[in-house]
Amino acid sequence: MVHQELLAIGRKAKQAARQLAFASTESKNNALLAMSEALLKNEQEILQANRFDVQAAEEKGIKKSLVNRLRLNLEGITQISKALQEVVALRDPVGEGEVWTRPNGLRIQQTRVPLGVVAMIYEARPNVTVDAAALCLKSGNAVILRGGSEALESNKILGRVIAEAAEESGLPSGCIQLITETNREWVQQLMRLNDYVDVIIPRGGAGLIQTVVQNATVPVIETGTGMCHAFVDRDADYEKAIPIVINAKTQNPGVCNALETLLVDEAIAEDFLRRMGQELQNHHVEIKGCPKTCAIMPYALPAAEEDWVAEHLDLILSVKVVANLGEALDHIYKYSTKHSETIITENYTRAQRFLREIDAAAVYVNASTRFTDGGRFGFGAEIGISTQKLHARGPMGLRELTTIKYVIYGDGQIV
Amino acid sequence: MVHQELLAIGRKAKQAARQLAFASTESKNNALLAMSEALLKNEQEILQANRFDVQAAEEKGIKKSLVNRLRLNLEGITQISKALQEVVALRDPVGEGEVWTRPNGLRIQQTRVPLGVVAMIYEARPNVTVDAAALCLKSGNAVILRGGSEALESNKILGRVIAEAAEESGLPSGCIQLITETNREWVQQLMRLNDYVDVIIPRGGAGLIQTVVQNATVPVIETGTGMCHAFVDRDADYEKAIPIVINAKTQNPGVCNALETLLVDEAIAEDFLRRMGQELQNHHVEIKGCPKTCAIMPYALPAAEEDWVAEHLDLILSVKVVANLGEALDHIYKYSTKHSETIITENYTRAQRFLREIDAAAVYVNASTRFTDGGRFGFGAEIGISTQKLHARGPMGLRELTTIKYVIYGDGQIV
Repeated sequence: MVHQELLAIGRKAKQAARQLAFASTESKNNALLAMSEALLKNEQEILQANRFDVQAAEEKGIKKSLVNRLRLNLEGITQISKALQEVVALRDPVGEGEVWTRPNGLRIQQTRVPLGVVAMIYEARPNVTVDAAALCLKSGNAVILRGGSEALESNKILGRVIAEAAEESGLPSGCIQLITETNREWVQQLMRLNDYVDVIIPRGGAGLIQTVVQNATVPVIETGTGMCHAFVDRDADYEKAIPIVINAKTQNPGVCNALETLLVDEAIAEDFLRRMGQELQNHHVEIKGCPKTCAIMPYALPAAEEDWVAEHLDLILSVKVVANLGEALDHIYKYSTKHSETIITENYTRAQRFLREIDAAAVYVNASTRFTDGGRFGFGAEIGISTQKLHARGPMGLRELTTIKYVIYGDGQIV
Repeated sequence: MVHQELLAIGRKAKQAARQLAFASTESKNNALLAMSEALLKNEQEILQANRFDVQAAEEKGIKKSLVNRLRLNLEGITQISKALQEVVALRDPVGEGEVWTRPNGLRIQQTRVPLGVVAMIYEARPNVTVDAAALCLKSGNAVILRGGSEALESNKILGRVIAEAAEESGLPSGCIQLITETNREWVQQLMRLNDYVDVIIPRGGAGLIQTVVQNATVPVIETGTGMCHAFVDRDADYEKAIPIVINAKTQNPGVCNALETLLVDEAIAEDFLRRMGQELQNHHVEIKGCPKTCAIMPYALPAAEEDWVAEHLDLILSVKVVANLGEALDHIYKYSTKHSETIITENYTRAQRFLREIDAAAVYVNASTRFTDGGRFGFGAEIGISTQKLHARGPMGLRELTTIKYVIYGDGQIV
């Protein structure tokens, strides 16, 4: 039996979505601006709730990097508020489309419409509450938010402030709803609420995402797990290769588009790895190497099978020497999570082969994997990076939060 | 534990998909032509297997309309063979895309690529075996086919003939595979074979589709259930309304885009339903009416709740008198399967409101719902009509069997 309160949230969201689907861009933008202001107006209350969450997390002994993701300060709230204004500036995809006329005179118009009700299940970062709500609202979707329990008090106040602001500005009640019940049974039921939820987007670690994929009957968009590889080919330009590896590994190691495994062509392994190793050590990167790597880099630790499989999300890099591009492709084929992969080479044919044969959301030549990001691709804010193939792949912006509908104008046509 | 033979099929499909992804359009077209010829060459063997299936079905006492769907004759085989040549003529979406350059010089190319491995689960019609395989192959996907057990012998020979022809023409072995095991456990396992299957497309009755939606962990594209409505507004032109209702109900009542429920504006109900009823009787359509309908049409049977919910797929029409457009929208909102809905009216504002507020794959003004079809929309052959919102909505052609990949050309860019 589904909890009555959860059903009520679902019903209310669906009711709101029915109206929100044809809200004008102007009214949605006004709501976003009202939300942006309301956050600043309530910043003290938000900080107070956040201090409560942070303290509780610290008392529970939660990992420092996670506590840092949870923490908000005045500057953080200002940033979240500004991010809402950036969503105002994004083009509204709803109502865009194309039209053609059939020989019988039927005019067929393919039009973008909202998905309906989006459910977001995410982990600690409280800014996701606001960012996700804003993108859903701008694309005409009602949203049901279910954040991590560590951020519950922060999310409660953020959710209440933005939902009230949206409603006061004239959008339907229920267009933004936060689940405050931490009972896990609710999440299980939310994933199977097909009558009320059109899509579910999990955002967080591999465990969360697999739980949703395995249990949801509502269509899921998988996001985020990034076991990213760089292959340094025998014809690589070291002046490109070394900065790219350092950037992809160290610029922000905790994110999904950071580098996890370096593959090096045997023909240059000895020379390249000596120079690369020096740089990696300068950047405090710990190395887990294959036997050949360890022979070249005495300071490397031997890599276990696990090191090729799972994201380190830390200053740790797995390194493997491969016979050639073919072996690199096979390794990536086996271990890739299909997020972002890069080859460093000056060889045209091998570059093209890598681009063609790698099956991933983003495949690079001579660039850092860290570019896989809605902003850096030029799409504006993103709700996540899809690593699946259906519906959306790579950075998901407003367009990916819509679907299409065929509108057909006739004057009596029959088959 | 997954059956070893099923795992082997999955692995082989994935292996084939990896190569098929960059097969040239020319080589795929050559395979399609070889398949087309091979069907004609083996027509006697196919007819023999089909006679076996038909006889077994008749002995089992299966409904005549289903036996007819199962039956093949020489003309049918010629049609299936010709359909393959029509797929040759369709534009290959693989490799199409757009490109833009970022301020830092990164060139980002969004390119269409195949989904990978498509699993089709379908019911009695043996032509689906060939049609689905052809569309998957042309779009660069390996396909695993699992047809209804009633068509097993027909499917076995069709599957073998086309798979051999494709392989002989040079495509990788395993690009077309048919599951001949009828154990239902295999279907359950196929739906959860996430390591090898990229998408699962069920095609058939509502029962089959719900089973897949409820049990699959592989992403699903729902197809087909069509509880289609026509609303005849007070300002309808009867010269359009009557032919459209007759066409949508009777031209082919067994298909998903056929009309199931007629809603009539109270203001014209008495007059319109008398004339409409006459025509429906002339076409041997049985009427299930609301109390008001039954009062106007004494030959109508009283409609049960079930009549508003489920597809008749037969010469039966549910008819309801509604107070106005608003009540019609509410009825459709409640009972629609989001396939195809039409309004018959000369009123501009009510037409626009219907188009805007109806949430369905296809929404019509003054035209028959029977137009919701890949061919009639101008897309060419379709693999199904999606009634869900993710990835594809409405008729699904070759493009909907692809995904995208971002290919990024750099010269050393870092974040």
